[in-house]
Amino acid sequence: MKTPALFTDLYELTMAQAYAAERMDQPAVFELTFRKMPANRNYIVAAGTGDVLDFLSDFHFEGPELDYLRRRGEFSDAFLARLKDLRFTGDVHALPEGTLVFPNEPIIQVIAPIIEAQLVETLVLNQVHFQSLAAAKAARVVEAAKGRSVVDFGSRRAHGTDAALKVARGTYLAGGIGTSNVLAGQRYGIPVFGTMAHSYIQAHDSEADSFETFAALYPETTLLVDTYDTLEGVRKVIGLSCKLGSRFRVGAVRLDSGDLCSLAFDARKMLDEAGLQHVTIFASSSLDEYEIQRLVDSSAPIDAFGVGTKLAVMEDASHLDMAYKLVEYSGKGRLKLSTSKVLYPGHKQVFRQIETGHMVRDVIGRFHEQLPGEPLLQPVMRQGVPVTRIDLEESRRHFQCELARLSDNLRALEPATPYPVSFSERLNDDLSWLRAEFARGT
Amino acid sequence: MKTPALFTDLYELTMAQAYAAERMDQPAVFELTFRKMPANRNYIVAAGTGDVLDFLSDFHFEGPELDYLRRRGEFSDAFLARLKDLRFTGDVHALPEGTLVFPNEPIIQVIAPIIEAQLVETLVLNQVHFQSLAAAKAARVVEAAKGRSVVDFGSRRAHGTDAALKVARGTYLAGGIGTSNVLAGQRYGIPVFGTMAHSYIQAHDSEADSFETFAALYPETTLLVDTYDTLEGVRKVIGLSCKLGSRFRVGAVRLDSGDLCSLAFDARKMLDEAGLQHVTIFASSSLDEYEIQRLVDSSAPIDAFGVGTKLAVMEDASHLDMAYKLVEYSGKGRLKLSTSKVLYPGHKQVFRQIETGHMVRDVIGRFHEQLPGEPLLQPVMRQGVPVTRIDLEESRRHFQCELARLSDNLRALEPATPYPVSFSERLNDDLSWLRAEFARGT
Repeated sequence: MKTPALFTDLYELTMAQAYAAERMDQPAVFELTFRKMPANRNYIVAAGTGDVLDFLSDFHFEGPELDYLRRRGEFSDAFLARLKDLRFTGDVHALPEGTLVFPNEPIIQVIAPIIEAQLVETLVLNQVHFQSLAAAKAARVVEAAKGRSVVDFGSRRAHGTDAALKVARGTYLAGGIGTSNVLAGQRYGIPVFGTMAHSYIQAHDSEADSFETFAALYPETTLLVDTYDTLEGVRKVIGLSCKLGSRFRVGAVRLDSGDLCSLAFDARKMLDEAGLQHVTIFASSSLDEYEIQRLVDSSAPIDAFGVGTKLAVMEDASHLDMAYKLVEYSGKGRLKLSTSKVLYPGHKQVFRQIETGHMVRDVIGRFHEQLPGEPLLQPVMRQGVPVTRIDLEESRRHFQCELARLSDNLRALEPATPYPVSFSERLNDDLSWLRAEFARGT
Repeated sequence: MKTPALFTDLYELTMAQAYAAERMDQPAVFELTFRKMPANRNYIVAAGTGDVLDFLSDFHFEGPELDYLRRRGEFSDAFLARLKDLRFTGDVHALPEGTLVFPNEPIIQVIAPIIEAQLVETLVLNQVHFQSLAAAKAARVVEAAKGRSVVDFGSRRAHGTDAALKVARGTYLAGGIGTSNVLAGQRYGIPVFGTMAHSYIQAHDSEADSFETFAALYPETTLLVDTYDTLEGVRKVIGLSCKLGSRFRVGAVRLDSGDLCSLAFDARKMLDEAGLQHVTIFASSSLDEYEIQRLVDSSAPIDAFGVGTKLAVMEDASHLDMAYKLVEYSGKGRLKLSTSKVLYPGHKQVFRQIETGHMVRDVIGRFHEQLPGEPLLQPVMRQGVPVTRIDLEESRRHFQCELARLSDNLRALEPATPYPVSFSERLNDDLSWLRAEFARGT
C-alpha cells in the first residue's frame, strides 16, 4: 500500500511554492522529536523508519495528483512542472528501529533541499509518531506478561487499516509472538494466530458438537469456552477428551469474558483433575498491561494473552507532542521560541552512556561533536537511496538488547524518575548565541 | 487504496474452512452494534458504510494471498479453490451515514452465506467502529465552536494514514469545513486549508521579511504569528499593512501557542486599532471541544479553529465495545450469554419515534415488526451489488437534520440522561424463549 505524495498537509505545498519562487533550495535539517514523556510511559520505542524510507524512495507526484493541484488554482504552471520532476534526493539519519528514545532526542533527521524536506513532513510524522507509540505500548504489555505469550488481537478496534497493520508489527517488534491479522502476517512475515469465535459455536445447535467438529478438523486447536457459560464450556472440553481418548489433542481453552482470574483458577483445576495438564489457558477480553500485571501478580494460571482494543488504541497514551522541526537551513542553526516550545538549533547527535551494562544517561550534542557514549543516530538514506534495509527481526532483537540495559525501575509499568537526558554545553552555547543574535535583530 | 481480502483475523478463515467442511452455507445475519455509550458521549454518528460497500463489492482473494495461505499448511486445496472463486453475494442493511446511533442499535447488518459474512467481519468492524467514533468526536468539536469554522489539522498525529484520511472525512461529515490533508481533499472532494508553518518563517532571517514575501505570493493568506513572540508577530503583520497600504489583503493571523484566549483579545485589539477589522483570528494548538467551549464561553475573538491531535486520536473516547455478532443462522435466532454480554437474537429493525420535531425514543424490534416510528435501517447492498451510493455531501446534510431533532441536553458536551432505547416485547419474548430452549438443551 504505497502512500501517495499528496498525503501531505496543504501548507507544505504552499510553502514549497514560496521557497521555489524565492529560489530557496539550500539544504535544510529537520529533526523529529517529542517534547514530553506521557505520564504513564518511561520510554518510547523508535519505530516506523522503514515506511519513511519506502515513501521517500518512491516519492513523486502522479499525473492525477498534479491535475488536482492545478484545479485548486493556487499553484503556478512553473511550480507544478517542478513538482512533476521532484524526487527526494536527501539524506536521512535515524535511531535504529527498536532503540529506546526519550524527550528531545531526534528519532529521525531529514537533510535535504528545503522543498523536499518540507513536503514529506506529514507522512514522516504520521508514521513514526504512531509506530513508536504503538511499540512502546506493546512493550509494556509484553513486560507485564513476564514471559507469557502476547498476541495482538486489535485489528477490529485499531483506528483504520493502516493502524491495524502497524500495531501488529509493533507488537511483534516489542516482543509479542504475533498477531491475528493475516495481512500483517503476509506483509511482515510475522506469526499469525487464530482459531474460533463465538459465532462458530452459536451457528451450531450444540456447543459440544461444535467443539468436536472443530477439533476434528484442527486437532491441536484452542477452543473458546465462554459463549454460554465458561466453566460449562470447560466441562464440554473435558467431555470431548473422554470421548476422544488418546485422539484428544486440543492445545488450549480460551476465556473471553467474566472474572478471568477466578475462571482461570477454576478451569485449571478442572482440567488438571481430568488429567489435561497439557491443555493451556489463553485469556482475552479488555486486557492491557495493568490488567495483565494484576493477573500475573495473582498467579492466575494463564499461559498466553490475546490483547486487543486497549493495545491497538493505546488507551492510556494515545499521542505524543512530537514535531518535525527545522533546526538548520543553509548551514545556519534555526530558532523557535514559542511559549514552552523552545527549540535547540542545529543538526544533532545523541550520545548514550553505558556503565556496567546499563544505560545511565544520554547527552544530546552537535552532530559532529565528540562526546562520551555511543552515538545513536545512524545514516539510513544517502542522496535519496536507502543505505540500510529495515529488518523487523533485527529490530526485534535490537529492542531486546535495549531493554536488557535499561534499569528495572524504568522497565516497570509504574512511572519512574525520568531517564536523564541533557544538552551538551556547545548546544546550550549555540542556543544562547542565536537568542542573543535574534534579540539584537528585533 | 483497496483493502485486500487478507485484511481479516485468522480465525475467520479457520472458521470458514470448518463451515465449508460441514457444508454450512445457509444465510447468516450478523449485526454490528456497541453495548455501552462512553461516559463523555451522548450519541455516536453512523459512518463508514461506503468503505464497507467498496470492500464487499470487490471482495476476492488474489493469487499471492492464496499462495500465502497455502504455505501456512492449515488450509486444504479444496478450501483454497473455494476461496479463489469466493465473492460477496449477500445483502447489507445500514443506518444512513450521519444517523445518530445509540447502544444496542445495529449500525450495519450483513446477511449472507455464513462463510462470506464471517470473512468480512474484521474490515467491517475496523472501518465502522473508527469512522463512527471519529464523526462523533468531530461533531462535539463543531458543536463547541458554535458556528465558528472547524478545520481538521490532525493528519500528523492520527494513527496511521488510513486514520488521517478518515478523520478528515469524518470532520467534514460532522459539520467541519475541511481538512489540511490534500489527499483527503482529492479523494473525498472536501475543502483543503493551509498556508504556512513555523519552518517557513525560521528559514528566513527575518520574520517580517517572511511575512512580506509570503503575502506577495498569496495576498489573502493567513500569517502564523507565534514563531518567536505572538504579539510581536501581530505587530509585524500590522507593519506590513502600513507598508502595503491598500495592497494589503492578508485574511487572518494564526495563533498556535500560549494562552489563546488572552492572546486573541490582545491581537484583536491591536488589529482593530490598526484598522484591520477584516483580519480574522485563527487558533490552533492542543484544541478539543472542551478547550474550544472554554474559549467561546470567554468570548475570545477567535473566528476559526484548527483542531489536530485530540480530534484525530479521539483522546477522551478512543474506542467502543463494538461487536459484529451472529444473531441468526439458517432462519433461527442465535444466543450468546457470556457475562454482561447478552445478545438479543434475530434480525432487527430500529424504530425512531419523533414528537413535535424531536426524537424521543427508539425501539429495537424484529426486522419485520410493525412498530410506531421511522424504521432506520435501509438496504444498501443486494446480492453483492450496492443499491445506493454513499454521498458525503448527502451524509453531511443528513447529519445536520439528525442534530436538529436531537434535544439540547443530548447535543451538549456534558453527559446527559441517556437517550431512551428499548427492545420490543417480541424481541424480549424471543430472547426468553431461546434461553428456555437453551436451558432445556443443557
